[in-house]
Amino acid sequence: MTETFTSHAEAHSPQSPIAHFDASQPLAMSAGVMLAPFSIAYQTYGRLNADKSNAILLCHALTGDQHVASVHPITGKPGWWSALVGPGKPIDTDKYFIICSNVLGGCMGTTGPASLNPATGKPYGLDLPVVTIADMVRAQAMLVQRLGIETLFCVAGGSMGGMQALQWAALFPDRVFSVMIIAAAARHSAQNIAFHEVGRQAVMADPDWRGGRYLEEGVRPAKGLAVARMAAHITYLSEEALQRKFGRKLQNRTEKTFSFDADFQVENYLRHQGSTFVDRFDANSYLYVTRACDYFDLAQDYGGSLAAAFMNSPTRFCVVSFTSDWLYTTAESRVIVHALNAAAASVSFVEIETDKGHDAFLLDETDFIATTRGFLAGAARARGLDT
Amino acid sequence: MTETFTSHAEAHSPQSPIAHFDASQPLAMSAGVMLAPFSIAYQTYGRLNADKSNAILLCHALTGDQHVASVHPITGKPGWWSALVGPGKPIDTDKYFIICSNVLGGCMGTTGPASLNPATGKPYGLDLPVVTIADMVRAQAMLVQRLGIETLFCVAGGSMGGMQALQWAALFPDRVFSVMIIAAAARHSAQNIAFHEVGRQAVMADPDWRGGRYLEEGVRPAKGLAVARMAAHITYLSEEALQRKFGRKLQNRTEKTFSFDADFQVENYLRHQGSTFVDRFDANSYLYVTRACDYFDLAQDYGGSLAAAFMNSPTRFCVVSFTSDWLYTTAESRVIVHALNAAAASVSFVEIETDKGHDAFLLDETDFIATTRGFLAGAARARGLDT
Repeated sequence: MTETFTSHAEAHSPQSPIAHFDASQPLAMSAGVMLAPFSIAYQTYGRLNADKSNAILLCHALTGDQHVASVHPITGKPGWWSALVGPGKPIDTDKYFIICSNVLGGCMGTTGPASLNPATGKPYGLDLPVVTIADMVRAQAMLVQRLGIETLFCVAGGSMGGMQALQWAALFPDRVFSVMIIAAAARHSAQNIAFHEVGRQAVMADPDWRGGRYLEEGVRPAKGLAVARMAAHITYLSEEALQRKFGRKLQNRTEKTFSFDADFQVENYLRHQGSTFVDRFDANSYLYVTRACDYFDLAQDYGGSLAAAFMNSPTRFCVVSFTSDWLYTTAESRVIVHALNAAAASVSFVEIETDKGHDAFLLDETDFIATTRGFLAGAARARGLDT
Repeated sequence: MTETFTSHAEAHSPQSPIAHFDASQPLAMSAGVMLAPFSIAYQTYGRLNADKSNAILLCHALTGDQHVASVHPITGKPGWWSALVGPGKPIDTDKYFIICSNVLGGCMGTTGPASLNPATGKPYGLDLPVVTIADMVRAQAMLVQRLGIETLFCVAGGSMGGMQALQWAALFPDRVFSVMIIAAAARHSAQNIAFHEVGRQAVMADPDWRGGRYLEEGVRPAKGLAVARMAAHITYLSEEALQRKFGRKLQNRTEKTFSFDADFQVENYLRHQGSTFVDRFDANSYLYVTRACDYFDLAQDYGGSLAAAFMNSPTRFCVVSFTSDWLYTTAESRVIVHALNAAAASVSFVEIETDKGHDAFLLDETDFIATTRGFLAGAARARGLDT
């Protein structure tokens, strides 16, 4: 087995604590199989209080990871939610004990397609069963239990992280005091499935994908994965944001070159997004996490009624959407809110005005910061955390 | 040179009339070079009247062709605008003489990257200068002149065809009595450039692209081109249309397979769109036509003022947009209308209510059909065609 690529090294020996679960603690997967052994790589920030009542689980998005507020071991960049998580920040590491784990199917140390399959000694590749959002959440629940925490003060996440937060509330209502669902949906739309399928086809069209066995063969479908990332990245930004940031501005030139170079800044930006992504992410993992989103349809597990997923839930909910997010629209958030209302759950809903598109949930958006701070403060009072 | 692929055969010996232009009639290209010789493949429908006043030039969209109302020689399908063009139809072949030519840079017989470069005896590949919308239009103008037509009764087109129609009005105001600009824009937005760049990168990422020389090497970047088409196809449909047509419906199965098969109908549909496209279209042509759109910014050629492009224009304009078209939005059409108003041009503007997205311009949309019929009838009366 070659270990040429940083992303692969991080997949099997991450710079994070790991919780190992052996054959005695298998994970029951949606695909109908038991997964054992498996591992979860995670980070924590802040300190767990004496009665273990101040733990917040943050769920990462599609290509995120456990480094929510710590430097990324491959890119060297600050954690993906540094805007929200830290001392004195809305998700305050001085007050709360923050847990963030790499999702099942990921490539940053939690069991995923780049992990070694103990049955063969080779990377799983596509032999890992297809992972669902519920699988990710059941694995997280085992980690939380391992950490000795009975009830989480909050589970929060944006995008695919919001799906996990929803799934937590549905599967473990008594183990989550509050939930924040940000820029997410209770099911993946046809358009979103379509964009994901384009990404998967781009990966699988790359001859270096080798039917998913590229790690064994010492290659990597970098071009296909870069194209997948480029297509996806367009959906993370609003048309307005692209126009404002780039418009038709040329890249380091005053005239068009009449060639297929990246004449426009937006082309250069996209190419950069694609090429940097492949250094930190595993192509098969991309297939797994996109598939998990596409398969997500919470109502389906409850006889077609989303409200049934939350009936008699004691959890306090906060649902957040962004006006210019066309990937997970406000309409999708309203579907969640209506279901929570129908289930007589406690829910706040905030639509944040911004032109930054889906990516707004990762950014230092004033109203979003204030919403998060306010919701957690209220929940903390209700939980008796500040007294 | 191999001739394995139908699309390539059609590129150099099309089942259409061809106008050849030799070294004495070069085309002055925007790239600053003269192209000669070159050829234009075209179709005509209906009959030119005695005073040659009833000719309509229809301009095709990105991957369209001259077979506007005749069976496509490769796919065997009806012409792409059969809904609008034919006896008794809004663009009435009993009344008008319809011309439609394959665009410069295309692959259906007009000079494009799959055509033989007379200097080398091999296909041009990327040695063909980058083509602009203005180049396409100047080539069409030479064809129209060759056909002995001084003034066109109308130039009409949707999407990239609408850009050509706009460019016609700007370059040759005295040679177009009326113009219909449908689902188009006066310049390509950052988001549209971004989607095109993803498509180009998908093509160029395919190792069978061979730096653009695949025809000489008897291969074809089919997978890359299919991915490009899949990504583009999503942008042609509205989110509502995708939801209505496909939603989360499964493809010939009752349960998800927990695999990377095309479980969802929308996945299957996209894969089909990708795989059928590569049978009829040349990958390098796809690079050229997308680049032509991206380079399009009509105002830039007139000191940044779109109105200046139409000052004192005698042409009658009709601008049409579709409510659910997010590729070329109503806002983009309004920019054109405002410029035409500022130039004191005669303009009608119609926004058609539909959930079918950008593709609506190709479909049998009642209000669109009525708009086209009405606009042409009014123009015909003004031109004295019906008397």
